[in-house]
Amino acid sequence: MPAVGTGRARQFAASEDLATRYQRVRATTRRLAAPLTAEDCMVQSMPDVSPTRWHLGHTTWFFETFVLPLFGKHETFQPGFEVLFNSYYKSVGPQFPRAQRGVISRPGLAEVMDYRSHVDAQVHEKLANAETISAQDQFVIELGLHHEQQHQELLLTDIKHVFSCNPMFPTYETRDPEKPVEVPAATWTPVPSGVQEIGWDSPDFAFDNERPRHQVVIPESEICSRLVNNGEYQAFIGDGGYRRPELWLSEGWAWVEESSRTAPLYWLDGEGRQEFTLHGCQDLAPHRPVSHVSYFEADAYARWAGARLPTEAEWESLASTQPLEGNLLDSGNLTPEPPSGNGKGVQQMYGDLWEWTSSPYTSYPGYRPFQGSLGEYNGKFMCDQWILRGGSFATARDHIRPTYRNFFPANTQWQFTGIRLARDAS
Amino acid sequence: MPAVGTGRARQFAASEDLATRYQRVRATTRRLAAPLTAEDCMVQSMPDVSPTRWHLGHTTWFFETFVLPLFGKHETFQPGFEVLFNSYYKSVGPQFPRAQRGVISRPGLAEVMDYRSHVDAQVHEKLANAETISAQDQFVIELGLHHEQQHQELLLTDIKHVFSCNPMFPTYETRDPEKPVEVPAATWTPVPSGVQEIGWDSPDFAFDNERPRHQVVIPESEICSRLVNNGEYQAFIGDGGYRRPELWLSEGWAWVEESSRTAPLYWLDGEGRQEFTLHGCQDLAPHRPVSHVSYFEADAYARWAGARLPTEAEWESLASTQPLEGNLLDSGNLTPEPPSGNGKGVQQMYGDLWEWTSSPYTSYPGYRPFQGSLGEYNGKFMCDQWILRGGSFATARDHIRPTYRNFFPANTQWQFTGIRLARDAS
Amino acid sequence: MPAVGTGRARQFAASEDLATRYQRVRATTRRLAAPLTAEDCMVQSMPDVSPTRWHLGHTTWFFETFVLPLFGKHETFQPGFEVLFNSYYKSVGPQFPRAQRGVISRPGLAEVMDYRSHVDAQVHEKLANAETISAQDQFVIELGLHHEQQHQELLLTDIKHVFSCNPMFPTYETRDPEKPVEVPAATWTPVPSGVQEIGWDSPDFAFDNERPRHQVVIPESEICSRLVNNGEYQAFIGDGGYRRPELWLSEGWAWVEESSRTAPLYWLDGEGRQEFTLHGCQDLAPHRPVSHVSYFEADAYARWAGARLPTEAEWESLASTQPLEGNLLDSGNLTPEPPSGNGKGVQQMYGDLWEWTSSPYTSYPGYRPFQGSLGEYNGKFMCDQWILRGGSFATARDHIRPTYRNFFPANTQWQFTGIRLARDAS
Amino acid sequence: MPAVGTGRARQFAASEDLATRYQRVRATTRRLAAPLTAEDCMVQSMPDVSPTRWHLGHTTWFFETFVLPLFGKHETFQPGFEVLFNSYYKSVGPQFPRAQRGVISRPGLAEVMDYRSHVDAQVHEKLANAETISAQDQFVIELGLHHEQQHQELLLTDIKHVFSCNPMFPTYETRDPEKPVEVPAATWTPVPSGVQEIGWDSPDFAFDNERPRHQVVIPESEICSRLVNNGEYQAFIGDGGYRRPELWLSEGWAWVEESSRTAPLYWLDGEGRQEFTLHGCQDLAPHRPVSHVSYFEADAYARWAGARLPTEAEWESLASTQPLEGNLLDSGNLTPEPPSGNGKGVQQMYGDLWEWTSSPYTSYPGYRPFQGSLGEYNGKFMCDQWILRGGSFATARDHIRPTYRNFFPANTQWQFTGIRLARDAS
Repeated sequence: MPAVGTGRARQFAASEDLATRYQRVRATTRRLAAPLTAEDCMVQSMPDVSPTRWHLGHTTWFFETFVLPLFGKHETFQPGFEVLFNSYYKSVGPQFPRAQRGVISRPGLAEVMDYRSHVDAQVHEKLANAETISAQDQFVIELGLHHEQQHQELLLTDIKHVFSCNPMFPTYETRDPEKPVEVPAATWTPVPSGVQEIGWDSPDFAFDNERPRHQVVIPESEICSRLVNNGEYQAFIGDGGYRRPELWLSEGWAWVEESSRTAPLYWLDGEGRQEFTLHGCQDLAPHRPVSHVSYFEADAYARWAGARLPTEAEWESLASTQPLEGNLLDSGNLTPEPPSGNGKGVQQMYGDLWEWTSSPYTSYPGYRPFQGSLGEYNGKFMCDQWILRGGSFATARDHIRPTYRNFFPANTQWQFTGIRLARDAS
Repeated sequence: MPAVGTGRARQFAASEDLATRYQRVRATTRRLAAPLTAEDCMVQSMPDVSPTRWHLGHTTWFFETFVLPLFGKHETFQPGFEVLFNSYYKSVGPQFPRAQRGVISRPGLAEVMDYRSHVDAQVHEKLANAETISAQDQFVIELGLHHEQQHQELLLTDIKHVFSCNPMFPTYETRDPEKPVEVPAATWTPVPSGVQEIGWDSPDFAFDNERPRHQVVIPESEICSRLVNNGEYQAFIGDGGYRRPELWLSEGWAWVEESSRTAPLYWLDGEGRQEFTLHGCQDLAPHRPVSHVSYFEADAYARWAGARLPTEAEWESLASTQPLEGNLLDSGNLTPEPPSGNGKGVQQMYGDLWEWTSSPYTSYPGYRPFQGSLGEYNGKFMCDQWILRGGSFATARDHIRPTYRNFFPANTQWQFTGIRLARDAS
Repeated sequence: MPAVGTGRARQFAASEDLATRYQRVRATTRRLAAPLTAEDCMVQSMPDVSPTRWHLGHTTWFFETFVLPLFGKHETFQPGFEVLFNSYYKSVGPQFPRAQRGVISRPGLAEVMDYRSHVDAQVHEKLANAETISAQDQFVIELGLHHEQQHQELLLTDIKHVFSCNPMFPTYETRDPEKPVEVPAATWTPVPSGVQEIGWDSPDFAFDNERPRHQVVIPESEICSRLVNNGEYQAFIGDGGYRRPELWLSEGWAWVEESSRTAPLYWLDGEGRQEFTLHGCQDLAPHRPVSHVSYFEADAYARWAGARLPTEAEWESLASTQPLEGNLLDSGNLTPEPPSGNGKGVQQMYGDLWEWTSSPYTSYPGYRPFQGSLGEYNGKFMCDQWILRGGSFATARDHIRPTYRNFFPANTQWQFTGIRLARDAS
Repeated sequence: MPAVGTGRARQFAASEDLATRYQRVRATTRRLAAPLTAEDCMVQSMPDVSPTRWHLGHTTWFFETFVLPLFGKHETFQPGFEVLFNSYYKSVGPQFPRAQRGVISRPGLAEVMDYRSHVDAQVHEKLANAETISAQDQFVIELGLHHEQQHQELLLTDIKHVFSCNPMFPTYETRDPEKPVEVPAATWTPVPSGVQEIGWDSPDFAFDNERPRHQVVIPESEICSRLVNNGEYQAFIGDGGYRRPELWLSEGWAWVEESSRTAPLYWLDGEGRQEFTLHGCQDLAPHRPVSHVSYFEADAYARWAGARLPTEAEWESLASTQPLEGNLLDSGNLTPEPPSGNGKGVQQMYGDLWEWTSSPYTSYPGYRPFQGSLGEYNGKFMCDQWILRGGSFATARDHIRPTYRNFFPANTQWQFTGIRLARDAS
């Protein structure tokens, strides 16, 4: 079993030391929770959703469990938290049942914030007093911060779902309405093909599932210049998209029939006049990327459009040639945006919405999980999930990479997901 | 269709006018919610449980919907509340799904308390300014107050369930531990038999399901002097109570097997050393009445004990001869108590715990539901539920009557339920 | 615990000895199964339905288990049958899971018929050779024959359900189509009221749940002269019967919504033009009694009609005054018939269809179950079921009595059920 | 859209013409059903299982629907069959619900055999009279025969499951007990690595999902010389295999806990002393390959053994170098056998048991489904299933190929599945 991480650990801004970075990332989480009431932070609107309170506690538990002990004997903040805030680390100990997180009212929000402050103070003290921190220990702290950033995005996907269940439709953040803009026509860009390399091999931070870098054969193919937008998706619906089994995977069609689905998750009516967003109910903007589609919907749309979804290798092969910039959490938009510019080249590879690929989530050849309990982070989920790439408007800029592999089951809709098309080279 | 109520309406203390009474009953609800945090008030720990916030809002909605319009045109406090806080009145309008009450975070607790204050102020103003209030209108107000008192008890049963789901076991109210006392041996009292009358025929308030008073034939039988206690129930368990199908109804045995049940709801281990209570985890007190048993358990216990449960007619026939006093909400005990005294006569008929009877919940001959939407209050639930009698420690003294018919499905455990035995006269 | 039965045991035709009677009843079962293929006899189309093969085996098991041992040591026909063919007698031994009866292909039909022949031969031999048979032993044999007759009716209800699931709609028996006849208008007959007696007290055979005879108080009321017919039920549907929650019990409305029900079980379309019957698909006959309605539907129809269902005491009080005759299994009609005659008096009390009453299934005062394992026959089902009275076209003439209590859950539709109205005396 | 098949169609023995082959394959199906009674042929013991009767009808429907119309206008054998025997071809028409196949008793077995004879006669006549048959039409007939062979294997997997549900454990075929033999120690064989080609490119028959042949990069790795056997699997269980979450995928562990699984599907007790087989209950043979394991179990075993499962590319890369021979249906063994020989080289690649690979079922680059309705054959199932390779003892010799891709969900146990290990080259 190799070391958990290797070599250097400096994915973040080079000028920023670890303590500053810790403080900045943790503060972002608090800022994202700030618009919410104690009551909002309680709700688990479906088993996949966690209450905000739990996200705040769990990310703190991660530092208490995996980081503080690196610096010597650590006294537990509050017995019981190690069960309540353990997500799925069976080698650490028992977990409170995931689907029941919404029934826990104590510790309340104020106590959880105390817990955060307490752990933050301890981490700061340890970092300030440590003479040196080994690369391995730095790695664990960085992992904790990347973990925190994953939960920042989940906090937003989850509270959006929570608010969507309230017929009074609360608003996470207010925003002025806006006018649709013209979107340039989609174009197609060739993907670097033949024997290529994908995966991460820098000593900088990456998750275990992005390693090792390895060769793949990529066929001659093309990727579309931008994400599919609401207007295009309306055309799919108008053409009977949700009534034609020949467009769907067998499992996807069963899902459509069981759930009587006729539109993406937050479209408020079958005709798509209104959409629920973090800014409340809004007129559906045809020029914005279509979001909250399942893999089934992305796959069916692509078939209808005479195209297909890209494989993750195709996606990465092209994305690696693009600048890592886009409409990410740092932009503060909290919504996917239409592509800017004149339509030349490929756009929106990073940010806006996670892009479904046609690749199931499996291990790379020679994959080694992180060492010890952290080995439960990624590897045990490599079953019946699908790879998404590129991040969304809720993903931090210093959290995403060309090799980053997000993964969710095919019926997932409540994440910030979208569709990018690909096709075989003609 | 007769008038909703008839004649006088003065179930409460004679010296108390309607406005005073309104103020007192509503204040009791606030007092019961006072120990709870905003987070506590959010939780729906199973579909049968409602969040405290919802109880506070729903009881207020009842007055806003049925009482304020009696005094003329009424302006709605907040659009949307009429859906969120409607329980099951289909003739009033749509209801937010019952099992989803825990996903609503707004209005928060403070807003719900504002809603209460607003409606209370309006009711007080109406009562103060009305020249006369018809008996019919007085009846609706009294119904609202009795409805409020039902939800006071539910608020306590529900928060107990909520807290029991938290592995850190929060305490609703602290209390000093105590020593077991000696309980006098059970004795048997004959029930007035032959052709008897049961049901309510006073002009004072009663629910529609208690009327009309009518004749029944009661066989020669006897009722036990007190409730079954924990010590006796432990003997049943020790004798294989939960492992012997011959002691159970067929449905009851299926329930035992499916739920792998081996003890009453809040016993923390199979051996009954500890019990979760509103005062936190406590050593099981053998002398206290056994509580949180389903009809199935009460019926099986009775069969094991060579006895049976009383019919509601037997119960009422005897209870009508007893003073209406006992360990009720007004005592502030928040727990069932052992019987006091020397064991002579029949005890604990009122208060302590609701007593399962062997009578399914059906209409009395000549039954007429309340008029209009209030007709949905009771009648439509006369199917596959069982009658409980006598009130519990969470029932207000001025809410209970000898004729009062509570009802729950046979598998219900989270209510404050207990067991009283009966037997055929030897 | 009293003896299983008491005194004489001679419910059947007086001129018929027990051996003849045994042969006749068992032959009827074989005759009812005769039109079915080995494949037909395999199917369990829902958990409530048993395969014909199982009915044939189980009724035989009943004699092997409870009757043959009365005559001395008995050698088991085939090890394994005691599990496969035990229905619910836990004190006898384990049972193969009820919902899985359709997965057993061996013993096949021929082997089951061998089993029947073998047991029949043994019973005949025992009866022929016994010098005397005690009243108690006679009782058990009679119980076995009544049990067989219950399964004759179930065989028909079950195979009707089985065939109804086949889109090719097989026919149990062919019959010529017929013309509707005019049905006389309904009239109302007063029920004997005041203190009355119901229940069985003859030494002749009856089930334990029909005893003891006891006093009840019956209010002044009237019972309708005939069953509700299809034409009348169509008017209920046409008036929005299945779309108006105010007509339904709360549980009934939930059942309507969950099952999207709009008509009785075997009506083949929402408009009731065709009905599936034992004679195949037939035009709906407006003049025939409406059948295959649940308690929920019967109750809602009665409310819509401004009436109510009778209590079982009302029903029995009137039925006891009527001759025990009607359209029963012996008629060979295999369908409910319109009432004959001029509409005078009360008709169809026996036969045609089981009539839902508003009485939950409970024990009579002083009820004692049969002794030993046979005590599991009836008593343990006294929970959340409803009484039906009077028998159907599938009930043997010598099986029904005025005191006979059939019982099924409120959502039951696949039995031969119908509606008779009652009302308070005006 | 390309033609359904291409070029030549001659996968079967070169000396055999199409009519002879048709007759032979169809006769094999009849032979496999011969030991079964009409009752056996009725049972659907779980939704995944189809009754034998249905397999016999469905394979015939396939020829009636896709082959007979090739020769001109075709008159339907029996209206209704096109619904009852359509599996999942939505473009052909509606299907009777899959999970309900066991409720259909008519057509019975004899009628289904008539249906087979009728269609067989028609096909023979068409083949005899056709002057020429286009390659495309030959392809459809061959597809029908391969389809038939797939259902031959399913007929055996399904009837084994059916019989296993009967506590009397019927036997499909009798066989003498035998003595365990010594199995040679496992060895490891290097896999051809680097840029390799996989997939089918011959004009001979193959399924669409095996095409096109394409390049892949295979890492340096090794494959184990034989299948894992029962004795080895017992060691895994003895070492706490089913109690150690760290050995399992997260979904796999949830599956273990939900189903309380402690051994492969047909092991009759937790200790593995007996196993249910097509030859009845047998002592577990430690030297025989372990069978009826899910992907979850195969994956956990491999992790416990310090190895992993092969990818499908690794498997095919090695299998292509091996002779296509093994313990297949033609051997008549009806059971997996221990490897023969001295343990040199790689064994059991074909036959014995399907081998789980670590490859999810996806399309090859440039994949094109069959044309028209036959396009529903494979492509729409490319979601959340896993590739199995190599065939089993129930797979016909002329049905398997090195490129053949079988696929089932990860929790599948009732198929003839086994485990072959792989590992990274050291």
